[in-house]
Amino acid sequence: MIIVMKSGAARKDKDEVLKRIRELGYKPHVIHGTTRDVIGAVGDERGKLVLQSLESMHGVESVVPILQPYKLASKEVKREVSTIQVSDTVAIGGKEIIIMAGPCSVEGEEQIIETAVAVRNAGAHMLRGGAYKPRTSPYSFQGLEEEGLQLLAKAREVSGLPFVTEVVNPETVDLVADYADMLQIGARNAQNFALLKKVGQIRKPVLLKRGMSMTIQEFLMSAEYIMSEGNQAVVLCERGIRTFETATRNTLDLSAIPVLKGKTHLPVIADPSHGTGNYHYVAAMAFAAVAAGADGLMIEVHSDPEHASSDGPQSLKPTKFAQMMQKLKLFAEAAERSL
Amino acid sequence: MIIVMKSGAARKDKDEVLKRIRELGYKPHVIHGTTRDVIGAVGDERGKLVLQSLESMHGVESVVPILQPYKLASKEVKREVSTIQVSDTVAIGGKEIIIMAGPCSVEGEEQIIETAVAVRNAGAHMLRGGAYKPRTSPYSFQGLEEEGLQLLAKAREVSGLPFVTEVVNPETVDLVADYADMLQIGARNAQNFALLKKVGQIRKPVLLKRGMSMTIQEFLMSAEYIMSEGNQAVVLCERGIRTFETATRNTLDLSAIPVLKGKTHLPVIADPSHGTGNYHYVAAMAFAAVAAGADGLMIEVHSDPEHASSDGPQSLKPTKFAQMMQKLKLFAEAAERSL
Amino acid sequence: MIIVMKSGAARKDKDEVLKRIRELGYKPHVIHGTTRDVIGAVGDERGKLVLQSLESMHGVESVVPILQPYKLASKEVKREVSTIQVSDTVAIGGKEIIIMAGPCSVEGEEQIIETAVAVRNAGAHMLRGGAYKPRTSPYSFQGLEEEGLQLLAKAREVSGLPFVTEVVNPETVDLVADYADMLQIGARNAQNFALLKKVGQIRKPVLLKRGMSMTIQEFLMSAEYIMSEGNQAVVLCERGIRTFETATRNTLDLSAIPVLKGKTHLPVIADPSHGTGNYHYVAAMAFAAVAAGADGLMIEVHSDPEHASSDGPQSLKPTKFAQMMQKLKLFAEAAERSL
Amino acid sequence: MIIVMKSGAARKDKDEVLKRIRELGYKPHVIHGTTRDVIGAVGDERGKLVLQSLESMHGVESVVPILQPYKLASKEVKREVSTIQVSDTVAIGGKEIIIMAGPCSVEGEEQIIETAVAVRNAGAHMLRGGAYKPRTSPYSFQGLEEEGLQLLAKAREVSGLPFVTEVVNPETVDLVADYADMLQIGARNAQNFALLKKVGQIRKPVLLKRGMSMTIQEFLMSAEYIMSEGNQAVVLCERGIRTFETATRNTLDLSAIPVLKGKTHLPVIADPSHGTGNYHYVAAMAFAAVAAGADGLMIEVHSDPEHASSDGPQSLKPTKFAQMMQKLKLFAEAAERSL
Repeated sequence: MIIVMKSGAARKDKDEVLKRIRELGYKPHVIHGTTRDVIGAVGDERGKLVLQSLESMHGVESVVPILQPYKLASKEVKREVSTIQVSDTVAIGGKEIIIMAGPCSVEGEEQIIETAVAVRNAGAHMLRGGAYKPRTSPYSFQGLEEEGLQLLAKAREVSGLPFVTEVVNPETVDLVADYADMLQIGARNAQNFALLKKVGQIRKPVLLKRGMSMTIQEFLMSAEYIMSEGNQAVVLCERGIRTFETATRNTLDLSAIPVLKGKTHLPVIADPSHGTGNYHYVAAMAFAAVAAGADGLMIEVHSDPEHASSDGPQSLKPTKFAQMMQKLKLFAEAAERSL
Repeated sequence: MIIVMKSGAARKDKDEVLKRIRELGYKPHVIHGTTRDVIGAVGDERGKLVLQSLESMHGVESVVPILQPYKLASKEVKREVSTIQVSDTVAIGGKEIIIMAGPCSVEGEEQIIETAVAVRNAGAHMLRGGAYKPRTSPYSFQGLEEEGLQLLAKAREVSGLPFVTEVVNPETVDLVADYADMLQIGARNAQNFALLKKVGQIRKPVLLKRGMSMTIQEFLMSAEYIMSEGNQAVVLCERGIRTFETATRNTLDLSAIPVLKGKTHLPVIADPSHGTGNYHYVAAMAFAAVAAGADGLMIEVHSDPEHASSDGPQSLKPTKFAQMMQKLKLFAEAAERSL
Repeated sequence: MIIVMKSGAARKDKDEVLKRIRELGYKPHVIHGTTRDVIGAVGDERGKLVLQSLESMHGVESVVPILQPYKLASKEVKREVSTIQVSDTVAIGGKEIIIMAGPCSVEGEEQIIETAVAVRNAGAHMLRGGAYKPRTSPYSFQGLEEEGLQLLAKAREVSGLPFVTEVVNPETVDLVADYADMLQIGARNAQNFALLKKVGQIRKPVLLKRGMSMTIQEFLMSAEYIMSEGNQAVVLCERGIRTFETATRNTLDLSAIPVLKGKTHLPVIADPSHGTGNYHYVAAMAFAAVAAGADGLMIEVHSDPEHASSDGPQSLKPTKFAQMMQKLKLFAEAAERSL
Repeated sequence: MIIVMKSGAARKDKDEVLKRIRELGYKPHVIHGTTRDVIGAVGDERGKLVLQSLESMHGVESVVPILQPYKLASKEVKREVSTIQVSDTVAIGGKEIIIMAGPCSVEGEEQIIETAVAVRNAGAHMLRGGAYKPRTSPYSFQGLEEEGLQLLAKAREVSGLPFVTEVVNPETVDLVADYADMLQIGARNAQNFALLKKVGQIRKPVLLKRGMSMTIQEFLMSAEYIMSEGNQAVVLCERGIRTFETATRNTLDLSAIPVLKGKTHLPVIADPSHGTGNYHYVAAMAFAAVAAGADGLMIEVHSDPEHASSDGPQSLKPTKFAQMMQKLKLFAEAAERSL
């Protein structure tokens, strides 16, 4: 932390600040500037947030953080990309780009099995599908719950694809973990710390989606919550942030991919379906995400989008998905990856 | 819903759309425009979100919602402002502007009792204080939990002030409701639907904070979640939204107050402490919130902000708070309210 | 500037950075941290932006600015609020809150004179009206241009109110300055530096509106452009920023008022008409702006909003404006100001 | 336009609205809903903005635009992508992806010629460089002005590359057009309508950058300004929008590429240098932009970024640029384009 004193701050104010820095266990280091003093606080980086409270002291202009507050997620702890094993055959973070595809919601046995087989045939590695749905409206379809988990398990049996599904409540984490290969934390729960701690205590990999208005630093702090409870198997997912633009449902922040790659060893995937909210734009953004360095993609596929219980407008039909996968191979190769 | 067809859409595409609208239980009504057709769907308003899925049909340009998807929270259901009774003596939504004040976190017995007495003496009506803290970093202070609730109850006994405190997990809602007079849902949990449903099932009033990137419509949908479970005693709290501006921690959206007043019968309060993140700006924004029509304020007060476990920079000292309350009376009178 | 080195940066990289800092005329000062070094650069504050280029050097993690880059606009240069004289009788920045009212566009002689007299009778101090209109669409009404200026001058003669009007092109600044008492720079031109320099060279006061996505620091840098050309008579106007919220046309950032008051000696006014885009919310936000410390208000008033050439939905009718002014007096008194 | 009446609006209010719609030259068409009426206004699409003023009428809940207000830029006017000829050898919008590269500012003869030759050798098609610089601070380097144009012309002679350079003032448009092959409108001037009209009157192609907080619709309206003055040779450039995220200077909105491709026939390029503000992320985002369908790229290249007068941190060195171009070829091929 850097503590910037006001121009013309009293000697006594500066002394108070120095004293307080020492009380908190840091060593102050003063730089005398031409118009004001600036104080560096030297010591353990992880606890430094506590220094922020100095901003309310007399004579202090501002407190400027210069370091990242996360540690386990940081590249300084581990330089090479982590590989997260989801099943015997699927690992995220290696040379292969992992594609997770399937409907927004599990709606019935036929729907989920048909879709699982279709996406597998097109080259997907994992099935996605929601059994517990966080919907903005209480009057919208809320998911089939445990029945949905059972249907996902059946679809896994038939298709051979491991599946990822969302958890929305600490109370059902154990139940979902009994069925699923990977647990998803959705954007709206990305700072639901009770839920993050709970999935940190289980031993299944976690797919953490970025919150709609989460900075990259906060995103990594949420990953740190899971990791600090003991679960290191975290995959990050960029899924669009909220901006003023309304032509797309969210703004898919693909620059988050290279930025995250520079800060963390965790794998990073992208979700162009939620990121754009419109199936017309999904393929273009899937190609772009792979070009930007994504380790995987999550894509919504529905055999009958006009009749989908949720997210119809952003779902691809299986034939469109298969066409997209064909082209995606070329971009994966250009990125020196396989599919 | 209004379904806008593409210019030059085929006859057969339009027929498919009309058929689908009827299947979903609505009556289509076509307007023939100069360059394209526009179709209105007439029927029950609450279920209309399902029509959004038509956006993936051939020949459809866009689906434009024209109505609000909430009902219980809506002014169309109840025109006069609701009055939410928090205790025998405190009700929110009446002529009196209700002030909730206290520290961000409960840190110890002396701290919370001292603060409760100080804010009561300055004219506050309710005590606030966090026992369960949703902190961005897992390494920051996480709250005293049940011990914190016990201390808040003691402070209530001594000061006579009812208290509001945050719940962060469906599993502890019943416990918190045993102690507290009012339950707070924080900004980060404003779309934690499992938690919203749970507080909808208890019989204590709920203070619902606006999420950092929540539109006003989504805010009302979250209130609707609580109300649709049976709990009508909801108070809304504007606490700042996330924007590009970094001079303040958030951007306090005071226009949300008159906008909400035009759409809902629920009372609306403001939190200038979180809204600005800086104690220098709290008084100005408290005055402004009352002038804009707020039914109450939530203010962070700490006797020793430089040593606070959380949110020191945005907390007022008790003497500053008392001065602010003096001036606030004048603004309350100008707004034809009492304090 | 603070230059943060990477953890484990090579000795030679640090030496290069130190050398470069000296070359640029600053004195480096190293703080040895527990995991990395941090270098302060001591010297003239105004030129420090040039140090930003060090971010591309080897071993540098980031360059953190700690000081404001503006000077003439800064409170450090002048502590008391500046009073900007607009005419013999009107000054902005004193005890009196100055109200500028009138239509978005000048549409004709009768319209502007009638409105001028009506707003004067209701207590306004200045007339506003657009002769040159920056419209988003080339097919919208673009203003009466010089004829509009002549009509504004007539309205001034009849009503006795000085007027403010917008300039949109460096080529017409001298012409507008011949007629107007005060020149307005609109939000869309707030970083049109050619225009800012030009109005900096004339001797009429300037009303500078905040750009839609301008930080407060950039806002002050735009004021600095005008002032550095010699014109110190600048009044700042908060008029709403662009956010994700769509219930209002913009989000009126009232916290900008106390923030600006803490950083600059220039007067600050607010425009609740553009800030909300909806006449229903104008009065509430006008009261709030005064409570937050605004030195004035700009309000759109139109005698026939349904037939206005521009901005009808956000314009008050004269009777509503007069009612608002009555209540506003009470808030001005609460703020220890007069109206 | 769709006019939504309030639930329970009076008969007389509706009649007034119908009358006003007819007065404005449109044909009203009423849909009787279960709780309220909705009125469509049928007629010429381009002038429909005038209907927005109905929002201030009694009984009107809201006015919902359903159509785009631009025409010349629209795909409905011209379905195939326009090809914009910049010189005998360079055209934007064809199969070939056009790369514009060079320094942020022209700083001297040696610098600009050296860079021009270097980027040509690496495969760039056009030179970029600023002679007139819009800088946030009046104390930053403002460009070499006409001398800069002369140096760019020399660099063109030596390298054979046509060049694009920014115009910032209507007064200097003719001068810049005398030298340059293509004129750039920068992000801060994207709604400087006086400047847009002026470049609409010349006969040189225009590169229009998206404003920092411009919606895609507003972006197309700014293009429409240029085109409605007679200049159809407009190329759009996505260069990042302003969001809450601070890890990058802006958020490069790559989804704008497929969205624009769906709405307009104008070519679309991307600027990953300004879009990210950090040279580390430029290559990844350049690849992603091409994968998303961009017709070209604008890249900042500087031989000595640590000594650049502006934008050092986001400039690539020539060798890094050459490496990027090698890989970019592979992505261009995957996108069925050439480089």
